[in-house]
Amino acid sequence: MNNIKERLEALRQVMRREKLSAFIFPSTDPHHGEYVPDHWKSREWISGFNGSAGTAVVTLDKAALWTDSRYFIAAIEQLAGTGFELMKERVPGTPTISEWLGKVLREVKSPEVGIDGMVSSAADVQALMAELRHEGGITLRTNFDPLTTIWNNRPVISKDKVFLQPLGLAGESCREKLGRIRQQLRKQHADGMLVTSLDDIAWTLNMRGSDVHCNPVFVAYLLISTTKATLFIDPDKLTDDLRAYLRVEGVETDHYGMVEKGLKDYFEYNILLDANEVNYTLFKTIGREVVSGESPVKRMKAVKNESEIKGFRQAMLKDGIAMAKFLKWLKPAVEKGGQTEITVTDKLESLRAQQPLFRGTSFDTIAGYQAHGAIVHYEATPATDAPLKPEGFLLLDSGAQYQDGTTDITRTIALGRLTDEQRHIYTLVLKGHIQLSMLKFPAGASGTQLDVMARKDMWREGLNYLHGTGHGVGAFLNVHEGPHQIRMEYKPMPLAAGMTVTNEPGIYLEGKFGVRIENTLLMMPYKQTAFGEFLQFDPLTLCPIDKEPIDRNMMTAEEVAWLNDYHRRVYEMLAPHLDEEEQAWLEEACAAL
Amino acid sequence: MNNIKERLEALRQVMRREKLSAFIFPSTDPHHGEYVPDHWKSREWISGFNGSAGTAVVTLDKAALWTDSRYFIAAIEQLAGTGFELMKERVPGTPTISEWLGKVLREVKSPEVGIDGMVSSAADVQALMAELRHEGGITLRTNFDPLTTIWNNRPVISKDKVFLQPLGLAGESCREKLGRIRQQLRKQHADGMLVTSLDDIAWTLNMRGSDVHCNPVFVAYLLISTTKATLFIDPDKLTDDLRAYLRVEGVETDHYGMVEKGLKDYFEYNILLDANEVNYTLFKTIGREVVSGESPVKRMKAVKNESEIKGFRQAMLKDGIAMAKFLKWLKPAVEKGGQTEITVTDKLESLRAQQPLFRGTSFDTIAGYQAHGAIVHYEATPATDAPLKPEGFLLLDSGAQYQDGTTDITRTIALGRLTDEQRHIYTLVLKGHIQLSMLKFPAGASGTQLDVMARKDMWREGLNYLHGTGHGVGAFLNVHEGPHQIRMEYKPMPLAAGMTVTNEPGIYLEGKFGVRIENTLLMMPYKQTAFGEFLQFDPLTLCPIDKEPIDRNMMTAEEVAWLNDYHRRVYEMLAPHLDEEEQAWLEEACAAL
Repeated sequence: MNNIKERLEALRQVMRREKLSAFIFPSTDPHHGEYVPDHWKSREWISGFNGSAGTAVVTLDKAALWTDSRYFIAAIEQLAGTGFELMKERVPGTPTISEWLGKVLREVKSPEVGIDGMVSSAADVQALMAELRHEGGITLRTNFDPLTTIWNNRPVISKDKVFLQPLGLAGESCREKLGRIRQQLRKQHADGMLVTSLDDIAWTLNMRGSDVHCNPVFVAYLLISTTKATLFIDPDKLTDDLRAYLRVEGVETDHYGMVEKGLKDYFEYNILLDANEVNYTLFKTIGREVVSGESPVKRMKAVKNESEIKGFRQAMLKDGIAMAKFLKWLKPAVEKGGQTEITVTDKLESLRAQQPLFRGTSFDTIAGYQAHGAIVHYEATPATDAPLKPEGFLLLDSGAQYQDGTTDITRTIALGRLTDEQRHIYTLVLKGHIQLSMLKFPAGASGTQLDVMARKDMWREGLNYLHGTGHGVGAFLNVHEGPHQIRMEYKPMPLAAGMTVTNEPGIYLEGKFGVRIENTLLMMPYKQTAFGEFLQFDPLTLCPIDKEPIDRNMMTAEEVAWLNDYHRRVYEMLAPHLDEEEQAWLEEACAAL
Repeated sequence: MNNIKERLEALRQVMRREKLSAFIFPSTDPHHGEYVPDHWKSREWISGFNGSAGTAVVTLDKAALWTDSRYFIAAIEQLAGTGFELMKERVPGTPTISEWLGKVLREVKSPEVGIDGMVSSAADVQALMAELRHEGGITLRTNFDPLTTIWNNRPVISKDKVFLQPLGLAGESCREKLGRIRQQLRKQHADGMLVTSLDDIAWTLNMRGSDVHCNPVFVAYLLISTTKATLFIDPDKLTDDLRAYLRVEGVETDHYGMVEKGLKDYFEYNILLDANEVNYTLFKTIGREVVSGESPVKRMKAVKNESEIKGFRQAMLKDGIAMAKFLKWLKPAVEKGGQTEITVTDKLESLRAQQPLFRGTSFDTIAGYQAHGAIVHYEATPATDAPLKPEGFLLLDSGAQYQDGTTDITRTIALGRLTDEQRHIYTLVLKGHIQLSMLKFPAGASGTQLDVMARKDMWREGLNYLHGTGHGVGAFLNVHEGPHQIRMEYKPMPLAAGMTVTNEPGIYLEGKFGVRIENTLLMMPYKQTAFGEFLQFDPLTLCPIDKEPIDRNMMTAEEVAWLNDYHRRVYEMLAPHLDEEEQAWLEEACAAL
C-alpha cells in the first residue's frame, strides 16, 4: 500500500512536469487480448488492483478505480489505504470516468488528460475524446506513457522462443492463408491490413508461443500488403529455422518496435483497420486511406479445417480420458476426506498433464463447491479454498491446451446427498444444454437467434443466467475465440459449418450453489433443401454428464434419448483407453437413463 | 403505355432545362409510411408500375425500374412497351442504382442527378449521395420535383376531415402524451422533435383520419418543443370543434406547407430527428443542432394502456364473431360451388362490416387457394381469382379496423380432402405457432431472441419461411406497427408488457400450397423473480384454428393442451354472441383434440 502511495507521488511529479491534470490506465494492452502480459499491467502497478477488468484514473490530488460487480469485494480489499476510491460500474449513481473528470477538473483551466494510445483501441480512445470534449472541453493526450521513467524493474516483454504449429495440425500453410486473406481484403476493397490480435497472427503464420497466460500466442504485429507480409517481433524470439520458414512462406521480419515505421512506410493506396482492435497510436500512424471494417482473419480462423477438426477430436479424446479418470477418483477421495477445491484442481491437471501433447491449462480452473459454485468467475485461493464434503455440488469448469486442440468443459458433480432444489435446478440446466445441442438451424443464423433454446425451460420458472451461452474455441489457441457467440446480446456473425462453440447454460443461486453443464460443440452440415443449408451440432467433448442429480420426471423422452446416445458414444470412444476398473466405472456412468 | 412514353418525354424536357442527367423516383412519401397517398405516387405515374416497392430511374435516353422478386411478374407485364427496363433486385448481376448510373452516365461531364428530397428519408438520401460520389463524382440535386409542372390532374392531398379518438378508447389525453414525450426527449438530451410518421402523430393527438389506404391516419407534421406543439395540416381537414380541442390540449395549428418555415423558426437549442424517418429536405431545413436518435413516440405508442387493451379485447371479440360466422358458412358454400377467392373475401368483409364500430379492413385480404397460398403477398385479382373446390387449403390472412382496435388474423382452412404432405406441413406450422405462444421470457428481450421458437420444429426438417414471425399491431391504427418485431434479423427494441405482436409462422411450397397460422398476442406480466421481470403472451385473437388438418402424432401433450385451452376460451367468449346453429358449429370446432 505504501508502495502505491509512492508510485502515485512519482506519477504526479511526471504529470506536473507534463502539465497533465489526470492520467487514465485501462486494463488493455496494445494487442487487445483477454490476458495482458506483465509488461502492460500498468493499471495493476499503479493501483494495486489485479482484477481482469478495471480502469484507474489519477489526478493531482485524487485517484479512483472503476470495476464491475465481479470485483467489488476484491477491489475494496486491494485498494484499502492506497488513496484510490472504488467506483462501482453499472451501479446507479456511479459517474462515468468522463463525468467524474468533468467534475473534479471543473476548476482547472483548459485541462489535459493523458492515456497511453498504444494500450487502448482506436474506437475506445475516440469515444473517450468525444466524451471528454463534452465535459467542458477536456483534451486528451495519447502519445505518452509516464511509467517508462518511474516503473522500476518493469517486466520486459517475454523473449521466449516461438515455435511452429506443424502443417499436419494446422491443415493449411501460412502462404495459403495469406493468399485467402488477401482475396478477402480485395472483397472488402482493401489493399492490406495490420493484424494486431495475437491469436490472429499465430493462426495466420502457423506459429505459437508462450507469452500470454493460458493462450499459446506470442507478442508481435503482422502487416499484410498486396505483395508483402512483415512480422514485427523481437528477433530473440525467432530461431534460424523459423526465420527460414517465414522466408519460404513469404513473410519478412522486423523488430517489434519498428511497427510504427512499418506503417509509415506502407505504400499501398489504402489499408483495412478494425478500430475495435487496433490501438489508437498505430491507427493514427497510418498516412493512407483507412478502410474501416472487421478483420477477415477472425472469421477465417473460426471455421476449422479438416486437420484442425481431426486434432480437436484427438484432443477431446485425451481430455475425456483425463476427465473420466478424475471423476472415477473424485467421489471416493472426497468420502475419504482431505480434499479441497484446490487439491482436486491439481489432481485434474496432473491427469491431463499425462496426456500426449499437453501444453498447459487453457484457463484458470473454476472449482466451486456449493455456494462458491454460484460465483460465476470464482477461482479458489488458499484463503477461500473450501474442503469438499460428501454432499452437494462441485462445479468444475476447466480445460487444457494440447498441441492438437484446445478443450473447455464444465461438469457439475454430486459429491453426495442433494436437496430437491439442487436436483430440480440441475435438471433445468441439463434440459437447456440438451435442447440447444439438438437444435438444427439454417447456416448464416446468428448466435443470438439460437440462445433461447438453452434458456426456455428455466425462463418458464423465472430463472436465468446472465452470461453468454457459448463462445468459439481455438485450435491450440485461445479458449475464448470470436467472432461468433451464442448469447442474449446481438452478435451478428453468421454461423457456419466448421465453427466450434461451447454450450454452457447455468443457474446460480447466490449463497447456495451453482450448476453449469458445458460441452464444446462442432457445427456440421445437416441438410441442404430448397430452403437452403441447415446445420447441426456435434459434441466434441467426451465425458459423462452426472446422472445422479437428474429428476427424470422433468425430462422429455427426446431429451433422455439424446443423453443416452451421447453417453453411448462417450463410452465407446473412451473405454478402449481405460483399464478394467475405469471401464466398469464408465459403463455405469454411461448406462442408459 | 403510350401515356408513359409521353410522360417520359415531358420529364426529359424538364430535365434538359434543369441540366439533370437522370431523375430518381422512389416509392416513398414525405411521411415514410407503408401505404403512399395517391398524391405522392410519382413512381407509378412515371413508370406505370404499381407494386408497393420499386424505384424508377430515368436518364435522357434510358429508363429502368428496380423491384424485388415479389413483383417480377407484375413488373414485366406493366413495363412492357414503356421503355423501362426491369432491374431485378437481389438477383446476382443486377447493378445497384448508383452502379447503373455510374455506367450509363460515364460519358457525361460532371453529371447531376435529381431526387425529390421531400419523399426520401434523410438516411436514404445521404447513403445515395455517398454512393453516387463514388461513381465518378455524380452529384445529387434534392430540391426539385419535376412532376409539379408535368403531372396533369395530379391527385391532391385529401381534404377529408380528421376526427377524434375518444379519451375512453385512447386512455391517455394528448396533453399527457405530450408531457411524456417531452420527458423522454429530456432523457435523450433533446429540447424538441419533429414527428413525421402519420401514425405517431395520430397517436399523440388522439386523432384519426382516412387519408391512407387501410390506415386511419391523416397527412400532417407535428413539431414539438419544450413549450409548444404545432400541428401542420391543411386547415380544411379540421372542424371548429377539433380546433378548440387542440387548443385545450396545448397544440397550435398551421398550414401543412408551413412546416419548413416552422422548422426555420424553431427556437430551441437542439432538436431530435430520426434520419430514417424524417425526409431529407426537412432534415436539412433545421438550423439547430440535430440530436440523432430514434423517436421516443414509437416505443410509447407500442406499449398499450389499459383502455387500449380493453378496446383490443372488444375488437377481437367482434372480429372473432365475424370469423366464426364466416367459417361456419365457408365449407358448405364451397361444396355448393360458385365461390372464389374474391367472393369469400367479400363475404368475410360483409360479416365484419356488421360489427359495431367497423371502420374498414386493416389491409388488403390475402385469400390464396392451394398454389396461390404459397405466394406470400398474393392478392386475388379478377384475372387470377381461383374458384374454390372442396379440397386442399385456403390461406386467409385478413383484418379489420374497428374504432376500439385493429385486428390481424390468418387461418389456413381445409376445404375438403388433404394430402399427407398438407397435414404434415400444417402441423409443423401449428407447432411453431404454439411453441412461441407458450414461451415465457425476460422483459427486455428482443424479438430476434424469441423467433426460433416458431421455427425450430420446421428447421429440423429443413423447412423455413423467409418473412418475419411477428409485428406490432396498432390500437385503431396501422396494422403493421413498430418498433419491435419478432424475426430472424436483428430488431433491438426491448419487449415490454403491454406490447401487441402477431405470431404468424408459415411454410410455402411453391406451386403446391401455403400454410400460415396467425394470432395477435398481447405481452403480459408473468413473474417477478430474483432474475428480473418475466413476460408471457396472451392471445387476443379469438377464432378456432382448423383441427381437421392436424397430424395428432406430431403434437406433444403440451401442445395439445395449449390448443384445447385456447379453444375452450374461444368457445366461452364467442358462444354467447352466436345463434344456436352457430353455437353448435363452434362447439364442434372448439372441441378438445
